[in-house]
Amino acid sequence: MKAAKPALTLEACIDIYCEAWNHTDAAERDTLLRQVWAEGATYTDPTVHAVGRQALVDHIGRVFERYPNSTIVRTSAIEVHHGLARFAWKKVLADGTSLPEGIDIAEASDDGRLRRIIGFFGPLAPR
Amino acid sequence: MKAAKPALTLEACIDIYCEAWNHTDAAERDTLLRQVWAEGATYTDPTVHAVGRQALVDHIGRVFERYPNSTIVRTSAIEVHHGLARFAWKKVLADGTSLPEGIDIAEASDDGRLRRIIGFFGPLAPR
Repeated sequence: MKAAKPALTLEACIDIYCEAWNHTDAAERDTLLRQVWAEGATYTDPTVHAVGRQALVDHIGRVFERYPNSTIVRTSAIEVHHGLARFAWKKVLADGTSLPEGIDIAEASDDGRLRRIIGFFGPLAPR
Repeated sequence: MKAAKPALTLEACIDIYCEAWNHTDAAERDTLLRQVWAEGATYTDPTVHAVGRQALVDHIGRVFERYPNSTIVRTSAIEVHHGLARFAWKKVLADGTSLPEGIDIAEASDDGRLRRIIGFFGPLAPR
């Protein structure tokens, strides 16, 4: 009997997910996301609701068209409870400046990948 | 034919939800949450995963036992996209001091109530 492939931790999934945002080659993004993006998983931020891996691969491509040579950098630790995580990140543009820091909430899938990421951009507005 | 009862906005649901945290009487919390807490909705923060309205009514009671005469104050605007919201809040203790600000992510239910709230406490740790 073959041993089951050990599942990635939620933190490891998030690092691979972030890495996918830094590949301009769609096939490379697809290869990375295949490891961590569960069947039908969703990515939702203020600009998009992407269902499934291909939709996310395509969305990242559109973001590269808008911000050529940009990169995503995780800027906080990953905080986890109950299979849920939050972390902060920023998009660094080609000229070295950054967009306002965003926050992502990630949810683990039953098969040890990601089933959902919800993003918000920039700081919360005062009440 | 009776007109359908107009659904509350996600913002209005969140305000009623926050109000429920400020009632020491469990029956009053139940009456408030009945308006906004969908069947089987879940509340999850680092200390608890509460499924359904009664579990949340009970959890808030336990928090009052730990922090008597405390109140919850929403400290940011409510930011909404795709039926999802984030907002910041703080717990003000009886002596007027506050616990570190928390953040909640809320998800609307199909029937115009809340189906899920995910909370995190305090600021994110640096990477």
